[in-house]
Amino acid sequence: MSRDGLPSRELISFLLFDWLGEDQRGTDRDTALSILDTAQKLAVDAFLSCYRKSDVEEPYLDESGVHILPEFAAALGQFAKLGLFGASFPEAEGGMGLSNLLSSAVLHMTFAAANPAAAGYAMLTVANARLISAFGSSEQKRRFADPQIAGRWFGTMCLSEPQAGSSLGDIRTRARAEGEDEIGQRYRLVGNKMWISGGDQDASENIVHLVLAKAEQPDGTLAEGSLGISLFIVPKILPDGSRNDVTVAGLNHKLGARGTSNCLLNFGEQEGAVGWLVGREGQGLPQMFMMMNEARINIGIAAAALAYRAYRESLRYARERAQGRPVGVQGGPPVAIIEHPDVRRMLLQQKAYVEGAIALCLYAAKLVDEEGEEAAELLALLTPVVKTWPSEFCLVANDLAIQIHGGYGYTRDFPVEQLWRDNRLNPIHEGTTGIQAIDLLRRKLLLSDGRSMALLRRRIAGTARAAAALPEWASFAQALTDYWGEVERVLEGLRQCGLPEALDDATLFQRGFGHGLVAWLWLDQLLCSRDVPDSGFASGIAHCVRFFFEAELPQARSWLSIVSHHSDLARTMPEGAF
Amino acid sequence: MSRDGLPSRELISFLLFDWLGEDQRGTDRDTALSILDTAQKLAVDAFLSCYRKSDVEEPYLDESGVHILPEFAAALGQFAKLGLFGASFPEAEGGMGLSNLLSSAVLHMTFAAANPAAAGYAMLTVANARLISAFGSSEQKRRFADPQIAGRWFGTMCLSEPQAGSSLGDIRTRARAEGEDEIGQRYRLVGNKMWISGGDQDASENIVHLVLAKAEQPDGTLAEGSLGISLFIVPKILPDGSRNDVTVAGLNHKLGARGTSNCLLNFGEQEGAVGWLVGREGQGLPQMFMMMNEARINIGIAAAALAYRAYRESLRYARERAQGRPVGVQGGPPVAIIEHPDVRRMLLQQKAYVEGAIALCLYAAKLVDEEGEEAAELLALLTPVVKTWPSEFCLVANDLAIQIHGGYGYTRDFPVEQLWRDNRLNPIHEGTTGIQAIDLLRRKLLLSDGRSMALLRRRIAGTARAAAALPEWASFAQALTDYWGEVERVLEGLRQCGLPEALDDATLFQRGFGHGLVAWLWLDQLLCSRDVPDSGFASGIAHCVRFFFEAELPQARSWLSIVSHHSDLARTMPEGAF
Repeated sequence: MSRDGLPSRELISFLLFDWLGEDQRGTDRDTALSILDTAQKLAVDAFLSCYRKSDVEEPYLDESGVHILPEFAAALGQFAKLGLFGASFPEAEGGMGLSNLLSSAVLHMTFAAANPAAAGYAMLTVANARLISAFGSSEQKRRFADPQIAGRWFGTMCLSEPQAGSSLGDIRTRARAEGEDEIGQRYRLVGNKMWISGGDQDASENIVHLVLAKAEQPDGTLAEGSLGISLFIVPKILPDGSRNDVTVAGLNHKLGARGTSNCLLNFGEQEGAVGWLVGREGQGLPQMFMMMNEARINIGIAAAALAYRAYRESLRYARERAQGRPVGVQGGPPVAIIEHPDVRRMLLQQKAYVEGAIALCLYAAKLVDEEGEEAAELLALLTPVVKTWPSEFCLVANDLAIQIHGGYGYTRDFPVEQLWRDNRLNPIHEGTTGIQAIDLLRRKLLLSDGRSMALLRRRIAGTARAAAALPEWASFAQALTDYWGEVERVLEGLRQCGLPEALDDATLFQRGFGHGLVAWLWLDQLLCSRDVPDSGFASGIAHCVRFFFEAELPQARSWLSIVSHHSDLARTMPEGAF
Repeated sequence: MSRDGLPSRELISFLLFDWLGEDQRGTDRDTALSILDTAQKLAVDAFLSCYRKSDVEEPYLDESGVHILPEFAAALGQFAKLGLFGASFPEAEGGMGLSNLLSSAVLHMTFAAANPAAAGYAMLTVANARLISAFGSSEQKRRFADPQIAGRWFGTMCLSEPQAGSSLGDIRTRARAEGEDEIGQRYRLVGNKMWISGGDQDASENIVHLVLAKAEQPDGTLAEGSLGISLFIVPKILPDGSRNDVTVAGLNHKLGARGTSNCLLNFGEQEGAVGWLVGREGQGLPQMFMMMNEARINIGIAAAALAYRAYRESLRYARERAQGRPVGVQGGPPVAIIEHPDVRRMLLQQKAYVEGAIALCLYAAKLVDEEGEEAAELLALLTPVVKTWPSEFCLVANDLAIQIHGGYGYTRDFPVEQLWRDNRLNPIHEGTTGIQAIDLLRRKLLLSDGRSMALLRRRIAGTARAAAALPEWASFAQALTDYWGEVERVLEGLRQCGLPEALDDATLFQRGFGHGLVAWLWLDQLLCSRDVPDSGFASGIAHCVRFFFEAELPQARSWLSIVSHHSDLARTMPEGAF
């Protein structure tokens, strides 16, 4: 086990300090890198070391509940001991006060690369605690967020129901008010929740479920649609030490990410599960969306981290594996396969996707830290793409890592197949690619006032202007400007087309939008890398820029062109023709 | 279990009879469909029924050898009882005398869709028997091919070695001549073979290994490179009933296709494994390539079959699963997700890829049946693409089938995840995508006399001429002509560029070449479908044609353009920059 598959010091140092100026927010480079070292040592020793085992020895359910890999409890215990559950919480709340950017780059990416199934428990716990911190009462925070920030209790998010996957308005879990106590408004919850990651496990003392449910109206009915959805704290163990009325009805057995238990939970099989309202009734969705936005960025980061590791694995393999000779050469010993142009192309493509995705995610993570409306608007625009682009293209990168390994990549003796399976979750959860695309195109672009897009265009123009001054890169600066001009023209066409037809190719539009963002950020990194002492690292960036502009952007232009020739083909296809 | 995931009667009937004119070769439509019914009944009852089980209960090795799922022995026994091992052998050789096209479409595709791991044993056995029939003596044929044609013995192909995956010139297995007996020239073989599918199992009475090895030269050395590679018959059980010196050194544990045992075999741990030469010394590679070409078409078919099943599974799911409402509609009950445009797009894209791949493979399977040089030349040109395009794009289709299932697609309760894993093998074995691309571009195009390309262009021009006469489709006819004009221009540029640099983007070129072929064959099918009584089926073809020309060909043009702007970026990237 080595650190080689975890984001390198050189990469993190460049992105955070040379590119994103994290030192201006208070943490200097040495401190950040020393946190990175500590985190990566733990990640290698306790998380990476059980990566394969956690794929084979899946969580299981018996009468006492769900049991997960014992190594996970140990790993997360050490994670807690180092205070890492609280890394991004203010010191006043028992945290370490790291910026979102720093904790994303140094912690989240490290542990997601080493073992996303184990890291998942921590990620959910942090998101849960942050929601309670943001919207709960101080008593709720003390009782339910603090033990999570300390890493003693873990948290879950209970949204989906069997009949309502992505369609939260259709949830049927009901909450009946039963007065107030020192924790807040108390309710009894009855309903079934599906796809609950960490829904039960034996690694933490207690589990804090955050549950979306509809409060019963005075006549006993539930509000239609998403109105009336509220957020409730439902602990597995109640404050008096008794078990709450929450039952594990089953476990899902997954393609990947197997170490994270994934449960069907029944709330209220008997007297109803006790829950406390967070904030006011009817505020559940907006509250949850704060968490969802953070979760979406985290998914982009996790996807990038998994593909980064696969890239490094395939790079190592390509350097070590000798096979064949260059075309046209007869005789002599076999060469390392990194000498074959097709293998090099697959490595460069991976690098351009993976490190491009990391840059995109960290750019967004920095926007979370920035104050002010501008950053918030830009972040809202970028979030669906930050979730989706890495999920889609880092999966392609994972596929290339298998291909470089040849037959060995198809065996379970090498990690690249598991990394590919693990990453396949990311285009699905927290809103599928198609759902993100509709969010981007409909809500963030077509129905918006256009300010966030104008902001984005200004930042892109700034990069293009700077690059245009460099003779070697001026043509790329122009290509970037042209590309975004084309995006705007396509958008204008979609506006003319009107809803809902304009959304027919939303997924392809989002893909093109994402390519435009990654192209921009590659060029932006290039500008910074010129100040870094000349090294393989800077040359790597220059190669990625050229690759992305020469071999990716032309494809992306074809996507935009397909979107602009709006086709109702799929929409109007008779069902009998499929 | 239903037939719904196996290639439909309507599809097979159209492709074989309305499109490819199989009745002109002797088998009428009713006979073919009745064979299809028989095969599909067996496939559903005995192959599909253990599809999931064969993924979970993998082959294992103990002192007595490798044990595979008992259901496989039963299934393959019934397959033998129906005479299906011999389906494509002449009646004089104990076969059924079906054409290659018919057996590919009706048998191979059916069983590969139902259970590729089980079908793999039959596919290898047939290929093995065909090689012996083609190049072996009549005694060798009687002893080793006949029991395989009867399905009592199974066969393997032993090519790769640990140090020489795709680079057969580097094999080190050696064969020392030890005289002649009634079976032929006898040798003792010593060496290690890797990745041997079906290398051991307990479902057949005997196993016939066809082994590539180098005969020792008089001075005891082996010839360098691929010269001196010969083909040997090495049975597990010798004619006198004793065990040959062939040992299973280990099993590979794979990502998918788990039911097919995959072995490391040691030949000659003791006195040397007894083997008989097939044909003459030094002829091993050309002999094997006859089988490899058949195997490559079969891989295309298997990839298409797996994706066909996933497409049908996702179509059924999309019709049954209710969730969400059309954009802009508030309230009312949830609709089936097939109503959502993005889901319909994913279905249409799958259909266009999967049925396009089937058409490409069957077109090639028909060329195998045709006599004369023209068919052979065209087949040689198409073979790498017939292997690769379905492997690559049907895997994309499998991915879309998972996406349509949402979270359920990520669980092992639905077959789409296994279909995806199983299909991931196809871009790797029998020559990776990159190796096929070099074969296509270097050997079949740049170093050829251009006759096969001219032939292909004539056939494409014929389709374009016929389509140009139909006002609704004339623009697609023009687009097809333009596209292939562009392929020729790119080729001319690569010729100028010279080897080996011209091969830098061989993989992308092959992808574009494949898209051009599939576009052509879609349009060609459309011309035929106009004679079929109007139905959903014909409308499906028309939608696929439009989709392929409107949403796929523009992307493919961007690939050609990238190839034409030849870039040495990956080739010249310093190793330290990765």
